[in-house]
Amino acid sequence: MSIDEVARKAGVSTATVSRVMNGSPSVKASTRARVEAVISQEGYSANRLARNLRTAESRLLLTMVPDFSNPFYAEIVKGIDSVARKNGYHLLLCDTGASLTAERTYFDMLRTRLADGAICLDPDSTQRAMASETGKLQWVACCEFDPKGPVPYVGINNAKAAQDAVRYLVERGRRNIAFINSDERFLYARQRKDGYMAALAQAGLTPFDGAIVKTEGLTFDDGRRVAARLLANPTRPDAIFAVSDTLAIGAMQALHEAGLRVPEDVAVIGFDNVPLAAMVQPALTTIAQPMFRLGENAALLLLERMRDPGMPPVGTLLDHELIIRGSA
Amino acid sequence: MSIDEVARKAGVSTATVSRVMNGSPSVKASTRARVEAVISQEGYSANRLARNLRTAESRLLLTMVPDFSNPFYAEIVKGIDSVARKNGYHLLLCDTGASLTAERTYFDMLRTRLADGAICLDPDSTQRAMASETGKLQWVACCEFDPKGPVPYVGINNAKAAQDAVRYLVERGRRNIAFINSDERFLYARQRKDGYMAALAQAGLTPFDGAIVKTEGLTFDDGRRVAARLLANPTRPDAIFAVSDTLAIGAMQALHEAGLRVPEDVAVIGFDNVPLAAMVQPALTTIAQPMFRLGENAALLLLERMRDPGMPPVGTLLDHELIIRGSA
Repeated sequence: MSIDEVARKAGVSTATVSRVMNGSPSVKASTRARVEAVISQEGYSANRLARNLRTAESRLLLTMVPDFSNPFYAEIVKGIDSVARKNGYHLLLCDTGASLTAERTYFDMLRTRLADGAICLDPDSTQRAMASETGKLQWVACCEFDPKGPVPYVGINNAKAAQDAVRYLVERGRRNIAFINSDERFLYARQRKDGYMAALAQAGLTPFDGAIVKTEGLTFDDGRRVAARLLANPTRPDAIFAVSDTLAIGAMQALHEAGLRVPEDVAVIGFDNVPLAAMVQPALTTIAQPMFRLGENAALLLLERMRDPGMPPVGTLLDHELIIRGSA
Repeated sequence: MSIDEVARKAGVSTATVSRVMNGSPSVKASTRARVEAVISQEGYSANRLARNLRTAESRLLLTMVPDFSNPFYAEIVKGIDSVARKNGYHLLLCDTGASLTAERTYFDMLRTRLADGAICLDPDSTQRAMASETGKLQWVACCEFDPKGPVPYVGINNAKAAQDAVRYLVERGRRNIAFINSDERFLYARQRKDGYMAALAQAGLTPFDGAIVKTEGLTFDDGRRVAARLLANPTRPDAIFAVSDTLAIGAMQALHEAGLRVPEDVAVIGFDNVPLAAMVQPALTTIAQPMFRLGENAALLLLERMRDPGMPPVGTLLDHELIIRGSA
């Protein structure tokens, strides 16, 4: 029921309905009672909206992630959630599919104060497109970010982390090191590729023909399919570095199906250290990102920003760690 | 900035600000211009809120899930999302942690029309507590539901599915069949336990001492820990039926660590058929739930309900399937 209908049913003006909803003292008690009766009768509760209009506070924080099916995001969201709850906020999660249109829609919620602030995990390219439109909106970037932009962020040093992983493979005598990358719209994909190239160059190596393959998605099956393609290549890799654990686990499945042993024939290193990485056989060697802490830090940064919108944009990089298990 | 501040800055009453925001024609053009100037100057955009008050439509659907870290929910959410987008809606996801307090907070969003409808995957016990409070709110239940309640739902026949899984183990000669259950606040946990007991009874068996173990969570690690406890039991199980794939995969890890072979020493069956189930070694035998279709159906049911709030509550049970792989 609209505000106009409430007004009509109560026999008052819409302005009076607004005044009742806003708790204005200038409404006669009998008029207030009549309006409230209509509102409660019709099941139309405008208290929350009215409160938003008054205090401009929803106690809701948006979190925008590009893809729910990657378990990587679940841990980050848990970190954000823990800080939010401690501070009296609730989370709203949006799966944007990394789409600018979806991101615009959700930013509109911020703009109209349906949420108080946002944490964005969408590709840096999408973020950059939004940064110019968002003006004074309170949001921070997590994992993906623009190091020179106006938005505070928290992330890791992706290039350095990838370099650590590939250097480890080189030190163990691997020479034909393949690289499974994902969508290069993402900063992390470009930076990890840089790290892969840097580690090879440092060892006087170059990628063999067809060593670098790409997927659009980050599912297990994406990893399996692209690794199968890699194995059809004239040069067989003796190691695979994948840009996410889900892709690495899918790749291990393809190796298993091709009758190849991990790590004897092909060593595999993933990225993220999702809980599952320790559960597969052989357990996955991977770069650990501090997912929970990334989420916590992003939420703390956002709350700080909301308290002090004028604070200069800061960027924090958390430490990564190479976790050595059975796969490499 | 609050409505009071806008009014003060523009030198008008809050009722006039409301009228401007509601697009009322009874405001002088010069007054309207003054109010709008203040609003745009201060970055306070009330258009969306005003539109909500007018049309009572946000084009947002809430989806409430109890735990993001279970990959089971990701597939359902994708199903919901696909139907929502085709119909011009966006999703808001909330991790309620299965808590009634959190659920109340999110239902408040519905009540105040910040969302147009909701799909709830929280435990049936939580849903039941809410059903009496929600009145005319538009929501449907997915996976968890009250078969005799007023809320439309879509789910599967959990008891029958569990019975199929355990019967398969019995038919392959297993006699000491353990059961890893999760929190019995969930309908599915109680129903799957019923199915386990029914299959044993049908075969003239009873659970061995200590055969039934419970976890609070559904993580891989919960499965690992509880399976380790199971293996310390005087009677060693020759099969394990776990109430989710995540628990089953964790249990396989515990068996591996104890030097037991799957399926030779202990057969394992999971539940859900998450994408990962096909990727572990050995691949997991499991009950497939049509997750994507559960999500699609829930969203369609909700949209139908929103169009016709008076429709009688319907319940739909979709088919499950036993997927036979290497683990049993």
